[in-house]
Amino acid sequence: MSELRRDPLFQRWVVVTDERWEDLRRTVLAPWEGPAETCPFCPGHEGQTPPEVYAVREPGSMPDGPGWLVRTVPNKYPFLRIEGELQRTGDGIYDRVSGTGAHEIVIETPLHDADWGRLPARQVAAVLQAYRQRMLDLRQDSRFRHIAVTRNAPGRRPHMPHPHSHILALPVVPRRMEDEIRGVQEYYRRKERCPLCDMVRQELGDGRRVIRETEAFLVFAPFASRYPVETRVAPKAHWHDFGTLDDSGLHELGDLLRDLAARFLSLVPDVEYSLILNSSPLYPAVDPQYHWHLDFRVRLPVGGGFEWGTGFFVNPLAPEEAARVLRAAV
Amino acid sequence: MSELRRDPLFQRWVVVTDERWEDLRRTVLAPWEGPAETCPFCPGHEGQTPPEVYAVREPGSMPDGPGWLVRTVPNKYPFLRIEGELQRTGDGIYDRVSGTGAHEIVIETPLHDADWGRLPARQVAAVLQAYRQRMLDLRQDSRFRHIAVTRNAPGRRPHMPHPHSHILALPVVPRRMEDEIRGVQEYYRRKERCPLCDMVRQELGDGRRVIRETEAFLVFAPFASRYPVETRVAPKAHWHDFGTLDDSGLHELGDLLRDLAARFLSLVPDVEYSLILNSSPLYPAVDPQYHWHLDFRVRLPVGGGFEWGTGFFVNPLAPEEAARVLRAAV
Repeated sequence: MSELRRDPLFQRWVVVTDERWEDLRRTVLAPWEGPAETCPFCPGHEGQTPPEVYAVREPGSMPDGPGWLVRTVPNKYPFLRIEGELQRTGDGIYDRVSGTGAHEIVIETPLHDADWGRLPARQVAAVLQAYRQRMLDLRQDSRFRHIAVTRNAPGRRPHMPHPHSHILALPVVPRRMEDEIRGVQEYYRRKERCPLCDMVRQELGDGRRVIRETEAFLVFAPFASRYPVETRVAPKAHWHDFGTLDDSGLHELGDLLRDLAARFLSLVPDVEYSLILNSSPLYPAVDPQYHWHLDFRVRLPVGGGFEWGTGFFVNPLAPEEAARVLRAAV
Repeated sequence: MSELRRDPLFQRWVVVTDERWEDLRRTVLAPWEGPAETCPFCPGHEGQTPPEVYAVREPGSMPDGPGWLVRTVPNKYPFLRIEGELQRTGDGIYDRVSGTGAHEIVIETPLHDADWGRLPARQVAAVLQAYRQRMLDLRQDSRFRHIAVTRNAPGRRPHMPHPHSHILALPVVPRRMEDEIRGVQEYYRRKERCPLCDMVRQELGDGRRVIRETEAFLVFAPFASRYPVETRVAPKAHWHDFGTLDDSGLHELGDLLRDLAARFLSLVPDVEYSLILNSSPLYPAVDPQYHWHLDFRVRLPVGGGFEWGTGFFVNPLAPEEAARVLRAAV
């Protein structure tokens, strides 16, 4: 069973699971490279996952059978389990919470190895539709304080090549989100304005870090990027809740994200990148001062112990340069 | 030229340098694998580095010639440059500071590819001696707010295989250290005790996460470890300043760190791990409430976008299990 543990100095929660070293070592030092025929996420293998909780399907197709565009299922090996009340216990200076939460997988396409950059825009929009629907559904559960949506584009040596995202409903607000909310609130207190709205305005005026602009969204390389190719996608107007994105917004965003992923691919073959969808946490209450956005990080083998140890990042590529090459990429 | 930039939401400083994408891409996608004959850190090649600022040498040997056990030089490609006054500028919502600081390299051994686990303990003690001396020297410069010492054990595909550490004198206190100092001070306010002293006491009483104990030091796997094999080495008695470690302490610690590195090696061949030395920052003043320690993280290909995006870590290996296998390792 997994549990959440809190670091007494950093006030930071960590999920700790109970794998044995010998099993972990086998997995991480020799990743699974099974053929597509045995992939549990491929069509025809729906019985190998738990029953679906949401799918975008062809008319007339049946749940847990073929005919889906996007399929959402509970993770068979969840970090957090949906059953049971939250249990909070202390152990001297340490705090624990039972590993209660939800951990779902969005299977993003029937194709075994097609990243967003190679998919049609409407397929990416269907993935976003699954994010929205699951976010709206999971927030009904009062045990959850934040819904996190994240994906890793596979790269060269993936543990699981079939494109998928993770949706986690957490019984605590992650430390990074707490820090961001604190930053937003302090900015409001001083200026009575949204910092991300100000950022969008300044980036549009400056232009050096802008990658692309559409009717509703701006794509830019953040001024204080910690990694060589970081990008942020934000609505240009103030908007706190991804859950209220309408269908036309889904399609505009799907098109834009497909394009951004294709640019990453053109910079680095078999690119590995991560995405996080940041929308207002649920606790203590949904915060209308928050401004939702998506952050991307291209994973390159730079940086190491210094960044990990100090939280102080050295980025060898200025965001102006990242924006320049991403603007030029097709 | 590099500069420091501050994230307006997270109040986090980042060093941004000005490499071109084409150069970075070439470096990171095809790491340098030059032969030892061309290694600038090997004996006989002292002329390829800037002149040494400190060395542990055989009696009678000359600076910048052979005969050294450990050699400290300014980095030829520094993140931060020692010259010039600090310049602070604003740009709309963004803040910049000129990239002023010191960036030194400790060349840890004349041997081209011998990690700590394969070196004699007194060689590791000589590395610690270089850390101590440079830390004491660099803190004389009133521009610097924190001295960070870090190393990455090379692993399988290193950019630079010759064992070395980085010493950085920073014009800002890293965010992680600020967070830790805040945690320490809050703990003192509530309990009038040091949290790390309490942690050492509780770990000794519990035993499940203890890896090794010596006269002055405890090695343990932290309760809320974010990564599969994290370890912390801390003095058992309260002590805020690594700079005051005496020679007998250096030798006890050198022996213990050599042993710990050998344990990592026995778990994973060609292990890649990172070390950070945390001693009290200098700004606003050296803090006697701080308790210095060393943190190690073994780098395994687990985790990804979720951890990066949320700051919320999922650790598949409980620290009790990590401590069990490290205790058993020789």
